[in-house]
Amino acid sequence: MLLDQIKGPQDLKDLSMTELEQLSEEIRQFLIENLSVTGGHLAPNLGVVELTLVLHYLFDSPKDKFLFDVGHQSYVHKILTGRKDRFDTLRKYKGLCGFVKRAESEHDVWEAGHSSTSLSGAMGMALARDLKGEDNRVVAIIGDGALTGGMALEALNHIGDEKKDMIVVLNDNEMSIAPNVGAMHHYLSKIRTDRHYQKAKDELHHLLNKIPAIGGKLAKTAERFKDSLKYLLVSGILFEQFGFTYLGPVDGHDMEQMIELFKQADSIPGPVLVHVITVKGKGYSPAEADSFKWHGITPYKIESGQVVKAVGPPMYTDVFGNTLIELAEQDKRIVAVTPAMPGGSGLLKFAERFPNRMIDVGIAEQHAATMSAALAMEGMKPVYAVYSTFLQRAYDQVVHDICRHNANVVFAIDRAGFVGPDGETHQGVYDIAFLRHIPNLVIMMPKDENELRRMMKTAIDYNEGPIAVRYPRINGLGVKMDEQLLPLPIGKWETLREGDSAVILAMGPMIQVAEEAADLLKRDGLQVQIVNARFIKPLDEDMLLAFAAEGKHILVIEESSELGGFGSAVMEFYSLRGIYGMSVRIMGVPDIFVEHGSIKEQRVEVGLTGERAAMELKNMLPSLQKRATGQ
Amino acid sequence: MLLDQIKGPQDLKDLSMTELEQLSEEIRQFLIENLSVTGGHLAPNLGVVELTLVLHYLFDSPKDKFLFDVGHQSYVHKILTGRKDRFDTLRKYKGLCGFVKRAESEHDVWEAGHSSTSLSGAMGMALARDLKGEDNRVVAIIGDGALTGGMALEALNHIGDEKKDMIVVLNDNEMSIAPNVGAMHHYLSKIRTDRHYQKAKDELHHLLNKIPAIGGKLAKTAERFKDSLKYLLVSGILFEQFGFTYLGPVDGHDMEQMIELFKQADSIPGPVLVHVITVKGKGYSPAEADSFKWHGITPYKIESGQVVKAVGPPMYTDVFGNTLIELAEQDKRIVAVTPAMPGGSGLLKFAERFPNRMIDVGIAEQHAATMSAALAMEGMKPVYAVYSTFLQRAYDQVVHDICRHNANVVFAIDRAGFVGPDGETHQGVYDIAFLRHIPNLVIMMPKDENELRRMMKTAIDYNEGPIAVRYPRINGLGVKMDEQLLPLPIGKWETLREGDSAVILAMGPMIQVAEEAADLLKRDGLQVQIVNARFIKPLDEDMLLAFAAEGKHILVIEESSELGGFGSAVMEFYSLRGIYGMSVRIMGVPDIFVEHGSIKEQRVEVGLTGERAAMELKNMLPSLQKRATGQ
Repeated sequence: MLLDQIKGPQDLKDLSMTELEQLSEEIRQFLIENLSVTGGHLAPNLGVVELTLVLHYLFDSPKDKFLFDVGHQSYVHKILTGRKDRFDTLRKYKGLCGFVKRAESEHDVWEAGHSSTSLSGAMGMALARDLKGEDNRVVAIIGDGALTGGMALEALNHIGDEKKDMIVVLNDNEMSIAPNVGAMHHYLSKIRTDRHYQKAKDELHHLLNKIPAIGGKLAKTAERFKDSLKYLLVSGILFEQFGFTYLGPVDGHDMEQMIELFKQADSIPGPVLVHVITVKGKGYSPAEADSFKWHGITPYKIESGQVVKAVGPPMYTDVFGNTLIELAEQDKRIVAVTPAMPGGSGLLKFAERFPNRMIDVGIAEQHAATMSAALAMEGMKPVYAVYSTFLQRAYDQVVHDICRHNANVVFAIDRAGFVGPDGETHQGVYDIAFLRHIPNLVIMMPKDENELRRMMKTAIDYNEGPIAVRYPRINGLGVKMDEQLLPLPIGKWETLREGDSAVILAMGPMIQVAEEAADLLKRDGLQVQIVNARFIKPLDEDMLLAFAAEGKHILVIEESSELGGFGSAVMEFYSLRGIYGMSVRIMGVPDIFVEHGSIKEQRVEVGLTGERAAMELKNMLPSLQKRATGQ
Repeated sequence: MLLDQIKGPQDLKDLSMTELEQLSEEIRQFLIENLSVTGGHLAPNLGVVELTLVLHYLFDSPKDKFLFDVGHQSYVHKILTGRKDRFDTLRKYKGLCGFVKRAESEHDVWEAGHSSTSLSGAMGMALARDLKGEDNRVVAIIGDGALTGGMALEALNHIGDEKKDMIVVLNDNEMSIAPNVGAMHHYLSKIRTDRHYQKAKDELHHLLNKIPAIGGKLAKTAERFKDSLKYLLVSGILFEQFGFTYLGPVDGHDMEQMIELFKQADSIPGPVLVHVITVKGKGYSPAEADSFKWHGITPYKIESGQVVKAVGPPMYTDVFGNTLIELAEQDKRIVAVTPAMPGGSGLLKFAERFPNRMIDVGIAEQHAATMSAALAMEGMKPVYAVYSTFLQRAYDQVVHDICRHNANVVFAIDRAGFVGPDGETHQGVYDIAFLRHIPNLVIMMPKDENELRRMMKTAIDYNEGPIAVRYPRINGLGVKMDEQLLPLPIGKWETLREGDSAVILAMGPMIQVAEEAADLLKRDGLQVQIVNARFIKPLDEDMLLAFAAEGKHILVIEESSELGGFGSAVMEFYSLRGIYGMSVRIMGVPDIFVEHGSIKEQRVEVGLTGERAAMELKNMLPSLQKRATGQ
């Protein structure tokens, strides 16, 4: 196999076009075979086989910097830079990362898991290069969906102004994760479909050459007009307006054409946008047919394209989606808002049932949040469905536009806690810490899928300000669902197990960890109380006062940053009430970024286990002695 | 005076054009006179006198919704909606807010202090209107500077796609707070200056009418071409590309022209952008001459335009700016990055001295952060100067791009703590809570301006990851400056006063509060230790362990959210080390949004005073008894 001889980009340089073609075929087969076992982002990577080959063939990584936006389309890049033999470990614990990872290779220069950062990265690298007087190339590869993210537009604006040398590759597959939304999309569609532009340009050039014959003043106008023609006719007018030289569109699976165009791009000073049309899933028919489903995929059978189905109770995500439909049947105020994640957020059925009440804004977390505030102020009940990690991008909008306005926005925060194979860029472990200090916000987390339904009812019925429910990226527990959907009293916790000298406060999946710990301690004759701390804010003050009165030791277990998290909320409560000398132990996610693996492996890595919890509680009991010695 | 008869927008409806002109003149004089006493955003409001008059004359607030972006240009709106007589209280404690404020008037529908939110707000209101089957107008008024903020572009993209009826007024004064930056600005300049466009359009129309005579195929091409002409020639091509109908530009001080254009805008379905050219500071020559200085102004003498100068030691902001120049003379890696705040951040002199190393990205906090990460990765030392409240908008970029990459970015966080008259949208009271839980970040706050200098030296010398220094919007203490700039040891606090049974941990201006408390307690015979907790992260673990060993009671004073703040960090430390039973009292900013007033009034309102601190400490001493009763 030719592919086996490729140890790094230098091995591509002398290949013939035929050999490059052969290589692209081998890479495609390699991806299809390997990902059938490991799962991963198949369709995006099949779409960029030729594009990645061409970039490494023409340019000189790592001296030249390749910045892959989001970075889940970097598998081909990894294969070409010496990591082919590790693909059996893809997205596994201690294995190859599913995104660009600087620690893996000198060819990986820009990490990302969130979208739309590559242009800002490219601008920083180009500025640094010029300040240092160096001469490397900077190449950003960004999808059409990512281009609607506000920060990408901020960067376009700045790059177009500064005119630094760089190449931006617009990888246009008419489909980011979900079908694109927005004016930018229509614009790109127009460019993509109107193949007459080039012809029209030639014809008009011919036409305008005749115009001077018409006479004086008009001819002068026409001259000025002719200058402007390229803007109109080369069709990349939006990008040209932003100050880029626009080249393309070019077929992203035709390497000869791309090589020619990239050579041209390389010779043009200033920022150049190369518009490349690719097909997501290219070369594997099931993925080409449904690139949405095949964006990120679990293991599958190659022949049939049949995906290995997980069995088990419904995912929290699906319970959310189904319950929202139920609630929306009753309550006309409900509208669903999503930043380009209708599928991932479980809203596809909702979109079918209520197309007018489904607002997909594209990759635009900030706009989605602030627009939700306005919807709420006008009497609607927006349900902003978003992953915990992506809500980070709307932090200011949550503070400034939603909570400060005390607007009745419901947050449905999916992927709260560890997320497994997507790893450190996607962990939902900060939302408690970045939301908890914002005035007016209620935050909940359910212990099971039935409680998720009750919390959604609670959120929809609550009309005193913003309210959030966060839930994990896992299956429910298979509990029986209540027939009648009843709301919960705000700020009231629930004792799940009675106990004596100690209490464990936990929420969501950490309640199972608490149960394990309590079972272990029971063997030692200790009866530990377990409380479902389902309201992260406001706290159940009566219960906390009772713990203090009873002199209880408190262990808090949270799958969330142990700095600024729920455990801190408990300690703050006592401090602010002037209740001193309590024993509160936090067990959460330590102050590190936790890498990819299974959710279970991630929990074990940071010690979120029943054994550890039992040990911490045992260690707490002689706490007053400890304090005296300061250890 | 005509103005005295205007109690609400309905009183404008029957005015003649001459009366409207007279009114505009009276409003202008009113603003110039009142703000000479109170201070405030003079130049922006002088710029929109006629625009605001026209909007209220033509449309029907509050049924029609006016959304003022940022909202500091809403004074004329306030005058016209019954609040004229409260202008002597402008921006004062319990007085008229300097921004739009829903609690003040039914005509105030959209609050903001951060830029670029009005388009998202307008979209939400338009969606809600249509879902409810109502028919009010939605009018967003946004400046040219605010248009470069990512979320405004996200909203443009979505609005252009959905085609909801709304009017976006582009208030183009070629100058947001600082001169605009970016491609968008060049684009607007081009539109603004090229008055030939309209003429060219007419001429070309004439020209193209002759073309059919040329013959068959070419004529057909020309037809298609003619359709596209309006895009090119009406000159609002960027906005038309985004799906808007573009009208203008129109002179924003010519009410007749504006009335005509807005009537036209009102008759066009879908989103319409009306491009209005205004002059900041219009009608008051000092403000016209230097609209940058007169953007937000302290009291001044009307005749001379002389500003009442504050006396006292240099502001922290200026010490930052001057020290950065000193450091940059020595260290070529240093570049300054600002999101449109070169003046407010004290960087004007730096920009003069090092024009190539000053990167003003315009209103684009996210891009600025991520670009800084890339600059750092390529060996530069970016100093990202930003207000605490605006850094909120780059939270995700700080987590995902800077701290996860462990990039050597220096954050210079100005306006940390209370900010006074700008009020609740600008308070810098969340940065500790939203930064402290992010791995790899060091956070410092200086006790005086000399320590700020040392912290800057510390930050520049530190090459192990991101590091932040936060400082308040006040004058320094007038301390003597060290001749030699020495760095501080990371994570080491400083005892300022020795004491016995209790210790106060404080940083920045709260150290003065601690001193006051200690002085008060001294009268009662209590000697309290005071520690300058200048590293918010990492903590001084040795010192914290010593407090535990000595059984000290701890009072933490912070001008920052008491949820998730520094006090919580102290409690977390003990909890995570298994040290239980400590007495730690937090005194910070409670869980509310604190409104405008002087910084001193804001501190008194939330109890950040020496008296309160002394009282809290006294209450702590019998804490162990308290615990037993749970009170």
